[in-house]
Amino acid sequence: MPTDDPNHARLIARRKAGYEHKQARATGEKGLLIVFTGPGKGKTTAALGMALRAIGHGMRVGIVQFIKGGQDSAERAVFSGFENVDFQVIGDGFTWLTQNREQDIATAERAWAEAERMIRDPRYALVILDELNLVLKYGYLDLTRVLAAFSARRAELHIVVTGRNAPQALVTQADLVSEIRVIKHPYREQGVKAQKGIEF
Amino acid sequence: MPTDDPNHARLIARRKAGYEHKQARATGEKGLLIVFTGPGKGKTTAALGMALRAIGHGMRVGIVQFIKGGQDSAERAVFSGFENVDFQVIGDGFTWLTQNREQDIATAERAWAEAERMIRDPRYALVILDELNLVLKYGYLDLTRVLAAFSARRAELHIVVTGRNAPQALVTQADLVSEIRVIKHPYREQGVKAQKGIEF
Repeated sequence: MPTDDPNHARLIARRKAGYEHKQARATGEKGLLIVFTGPGKGKTTAALGMALRAIGHGMRVGIVQFIKGGQDSAERAVFSGFENVDFQVIGDGFTWLTQNREQDIATAERAWAEAERMIRDPRYALVILDELNLVLKYGYLDLTRVLAAFSARRAELHIVVTGRNAPQALVTQADLVSEIRVIKHPYREQGVKAQKGIEF
Repeated sequence: MPTDDPNHARLIARRKAGYEHKQARATGEKGLLIVFTGPGKGKTTAALGMALRAIGHGMRVGIVQFIKGGQDSAERAVFSGFENVDFQVIGDGFTWLTQNREQDIATAERAWAEAERMIRDPRYALVILDELNLVLKYGYLDLTRVLAAFSARRAELHIVVTGRNAPQALVTQADLVSEIRVIKHPYREQGVKAQKGIEF
């Protein structure tokens, strides 16, 4: 391994200067609309990791799971130990399981009512709407109404939306959008089953 | 919004059947080598979200932060409340800050020694090596040695590696690789500064 590199210090100094320049130019502070989308693993996990970070700062966090509540019982168990987290699981596995569109829409509406309550309640600093993108994709909620509620939020409120296939209008309105791509997946390629601590 | 769709139930049934078929074929169980890479936000956050999930199952988690320890104090504060998490921050901000390659290598070696200890200790079910990719990119640690340690791990141990620019040999060896891409970033485009609960 090379242990001596004449260009190293120069490279490092340039990186550091670039970083400091960028930070100095970024002075605004505002609540962000953040989207984690794409087909890869880690969207919900990243959102819940953000909840963890906010809790560590003593901020109040609201979480509404629109879909796959049944798989995230371990995270809920941990969050239940913190009084500044409100973790609502509505419509456990409701999509493509009930095979009843009317029922799915009713469930989505209940979940959205909970989301709107959190968005309006000034005690919340961060609201996570897990798998909302899937609900929007199926047309269970009206996108225009959802985006209007986001626009009307308090200036300092952060909202995180997860799920593959984020609607383009949501991406346009969002401040920060990360797309998670699958480079390699063990279930598809190796026949490994979903495991405790990894998938659920 | 459409509330009645003759194709809906059929579509849903087909999706469900496909999902169940895939699950039924995936029967193996093994410790996974997981990589979160790419330039987008959420790599560390996703890894720490996985830690949260594992803790919720009562699994023991080891975390070694190779680089940016200084920014993650909020997460550490939360994890410090759990006795089955060992969160080691080594080399707080060491890269491109010391401008001293010898010192950076020594720090990387100390962090790696801690990582190897966790990998060998059978009490750990999940070991997270945060920003290891950056250390490998700079050549502060020998990639061959790192990959050999991963190969020699206990069959049931999960390892998560984060950081942009994952080396190709690591991707090849990994079971699950997610790449996080930036679709939109507020600092670059809007001059918004790093904020509590979001960036740190």
